[in-house]
Amino acid sequence: MTLISINDVREAAERIRPVARRTPVLPGPTGIGRDLLLKPENLQTTGSFKIRGACNAVESMSPHQRKLGVITYSSGNHAQALAYAARTHGVKCTVVMPDDAKPVKVAATKALGADVVTVPPADRKAHAERLASENGYALVPPYDHPLVIAGQGTVGLEIVEDVPDVDVVLVPVGGGALAAGVASAVKSLRPTARVIGVEPELAADAAEGLSSGRRAEWSMTQTGRTVADGLRTNLSELTFAHLQAHLDGIVTVAEHELLDAVRTLATGAHLVVEPSGAATVAAFLHHADQLPTGRTVAVLSGGNVDTSLLADVLAG
Amino acid sequence: MTLISINDVREAAERIRPVARRTPVLPGPTGIGRDLLLKPENLQTTGSFKIRGACNAVESMSPHQRKLGVITYSSGNHAQALAYAARTHGVKCTVVMPDDAKPVKVAATKALGADVVTVPPADRKAHAERLASENGYALVPPYDHPLVIAGQGTVGLEIVEDVPDVDVVLVPVGGGALAAGVASAVKSLRPTARVIGVEPELAADAAEGLSSGRRAEWSMTQTGRTVADGLRTNLSELTFAHLQAHLDGIVTVAEHELLDAVRTLATGAHLVVEPSGAATVAAFLHHADQLPTGRTVAVLSGGNVDTSLLADVLAG
Repeated sequence: MTLISINDVREAAERIRPVARRTPVLPGPTGIGRDLLLKPENLQTTGSFKIRGACNAVESMSPHQRKLGVITYSSGNHAQALAYAARTHGVKCTVVMPDDAKPVKVAATKALGADVVTVPPADRKAHAERLASENGYALVPPYDHPLVIAGQGTVGLEIVEDVPDVDVVLVPVGGGALAAGVASAVKSLRPTARVIGVEPELAADAAEGLSSGRRAEWSMTQTGRTVADGLRTNLSELTFAHLQAHLDGIVTVAEHELLDAVRTLATGAHLVVEPSGAATVAAFLHHADQLPTGRTVAVLSGGNVDTSLLADVLAG
Repeated sequence: MTLISINDVREAAERIRPVARRTPVLPGPTGIGRDLLLKPENLQTTGSFKIRGACNAVESMSPHQRKLGVITYSSGNHAQALAYAARTHGVKCTVVMPDDAKPVKVAATKALGADVVTVPPADRKAHAERLASENGYALVPPYDHPLVIAGQGTVGLEIVEDVPDVDVVLVPVGGGALAAGVASAVKSLRPTARVIGVEPELAADAAEGLSSGRRAEWSMTQTGRTVADGLRTNLSELTFAHLQAHLDGIVTVAEHELLDAVRTLATGAHLVVEPSGAATVAAFLHHADQLPTGRTVAVLSGGNVDTSLLADVLAG
């Protein structure tokens, strides 16, 4: 299996520059007693890092493929990211969503110009693959693709450019493309830095797989219990291979630690971050004993939190 | 009365560089249908623009004065900003607060190393002036000082540097130093741009004063009713003179519009902003007919919102 290289990440950075933002590096929340830096992808176009991979995939397509269109299966941030990237390039976009997806997510994806097709949850991937082959659409999966991994890796490239003396990078692990891309970029540019993944205890398939040396599969019944809906996904063989090669460790966090991190980021850093996006700060606040010391950057992967959940968290 | 010049603002920018952040310019909330840019001073050190003026004042002091110390009267963002600026320079700081100030604000100011003295609300200014003269402290008022105005003006300098084709700048008006500084800087660097102040309807002393040509005084009984606690203050003669010279207009916003802007910024831009800080976005969302058109930057002055208020706003 071929892993992506720093050149793939550099090429991705050039491709996505007109569409994806270069997010700043910001200081961590006040009042936590230790220094932390944040890479706030909640401030990214479409509210998460996903635009980077989606944009890299669409930008890499031939003019012929762009005429045919793109498709994906996702009910989350990747759907909106691909819809946005496609619209920017005048490419038709179809998104296959589970028929139990929240109406607000369907509406947001449609508002970005995508056609939304709803099917029973178990049929999503197969249905997207069928539509792709029938119509000649390019399937842009949420994480299991080298161009997506390279695109997400631009987060790591920017971190090292903006914080050249970084010692530790904390990155959330869901499907694994963000962690794979960031670890590839950071370890290539600054081999002495440590890249640590963070997962919910309730969706710790990557921790289990990396510990055993074989990719683990957790059922949606298990992972569906975590509030961090962006981190419920299992790794693919491709992202697992990247994490085996480049990740320095993995830490798991409890549900109340995720919510505490969401609250701390809102009150202490004035940032609205979704539970998945706050996982790295949860690890920093509650599991410092498991982390390497030094100048630390926590990747905040996104900000698309349910408003009522945020209200509840703040009301305590 | 001498007004500050762009050179004063440029000197301030040099002085405050080691302490105050250069906040980025971010795109406005999604879903509002029109383009807007944000200058998010909620992401500034101590959570508001106030660090700029406080830092410029402390940096400008003689070594002798720094040995004696500084003092101010404030229960809000200026207190924390001065405490932070003083601590950074190893200067003793005293803050006179009303004895009805919220314990959390007293604690936050003490945590930054300041001595807090509480007195009846009506005695604050007089007590601070007495302590200043008795102890040789330099009094750094929240807005009525050329160095404070010049420091706040660096917000305008950064806006024009980062958005050279800006057409409209929206800035909140409380004591008036931020609006005075921003208007001075922007109109000097880009005379064709329009700078518009924004006030709560319930604290519209600046609108009244600029309309009549004479500074107006609104009582705390009147202005205390607005949720925008940073905008309850009257202009001083000094800030009024700057606004008369440089401001292109002023718009007032209703209470529900302030809260709607807080909610829109949290959900659509993933930023936690206090009601005073969201006033400019309230004007953009609800009073577009009173604003010049073109490329618009809204200054978000701060993010230190009461957590329970934010929870209530989000719960709708």
